[in-house]
Amino acid sequence: MIEVEVKFRGFDGIEEKLLSAGFEFLEEKLEEDIYFSSPVRDFSKTDEALRVRRESNSGKAKLTYKGRKMDPLTKTREELTVEVSDCENMKAILEKLGFEAVATVRKRRKVYRMGDVLACVDEVEGLGKFVELEVDVETSKDAIARARERVSEIALSLGLGKLEDSITLSYLEMVLSRNR
Amino acid sequence: MIEVEVKFRGFDGIEEKLLSAGFEFLEEKLEEDIYFSSPVRDFSKTDEALRVRRESNSGKAKLTYKGRKMDPLTKTREELTVEVSDCENMKAILEKLGFEAVATVRKRRKVYRMGDVLACVDEVEGLGKFVELEVDVETSKDAIARARERVSEIALSLGLGKLEDSITLSYLEMVLSRNR
Repeated sequence: MIEVEVKFRGFDGIEEKLLSAGFEFLEEKLEEDIYFSSPVRDFSKTDEALRVRRESNSGKAKLTYKGRKMDPLTKTREELTVEVSDCENMKAILEKLGFEAVATVRKRRKVYRMGDVLACVDEVEGLGKFVELEVDVETSKDAIARARERVSEIALSLGLGKLEDSITLSYLEMVLSRNR
Repeated sequence: MIEVEVKFRGFDGIEEKLLSAGFEFLEEKLEEDIYFSSPVRDFSKTDEALRVRRESNSGKAKLTYKGRKMDPLTKTREELTVEVSDCENMKAILEKLGFEAVATVRKRRKVYRMGDVLACVDEVEGLGKFVELEVDVETSKDAIARARERVSEIALSLGLGKLEDSITLSYLEMVLSRNR
């Protein structure tokens, strides 16, 4: 699957705007994302990411690989995810295989949905408030272009801004550059 | 967890022997085990293994890392496992990270249990019939030694043989040496 995603700084009142635009509230989660480095290549150079996510309230854990960004204006990229039964064992397996935990990103995420578009309102520890709009599509140029167009229009109508003003840095990159 | 395990050639009547020794039948499964090579080190030299297991009947999938064998007479080794929600995605993530599927082992496994001792009667495709006796213990020399003693006694009483006659090769090693 390809994840077509745009990110903007959040602002007070964005959640009311989402609701009046037709989004419905789905859930609120505390997410702890542990990012790993590879023993083979430098993910910060190849623009890949490997993450173990723990949802603090549900106890669910997920392993996710993200490929390099496919579009200079958005965070569109390949994403592969599996749910895993045990966060600690998943981390331990990765460490045995030579991967190292390099940073942890914690956030409170509120998820809204309108059709196949997800809107995540995130309070990220140490970074502030953001909104991500996301559509998952099949790997086809047309499908990606259409999804990009749609999230672009929605972002504009919500007052988040133009695609050119969106943030293409991941939370991981923002956390790492803050610590530098 | 440490998996203390011994393996012997199976024989006709072993299942009746297990039942009369006090084992109870738990379940029968079709397992497809895909083993991966590492981009960092040669698992056949370091005596480690990385495996994605699919249970054909339940649809369950598991990711397992096995450490090097800790005992020359048995297959005792560290084992870390997580259940994963999607076998194909798990394989795809490993491949993205540089791991390669090198061999597949298929077997019909019947699982018996007596207390904390598991007995697996395996019909392995291309290899034949085997019995594995297994106890999972905490990482302590005493616990490992006691478990080793117990599986040794049970193997002898079942007529499987002495610890010295047990098979320390994994199914993966047996499949790979057959293909060579």
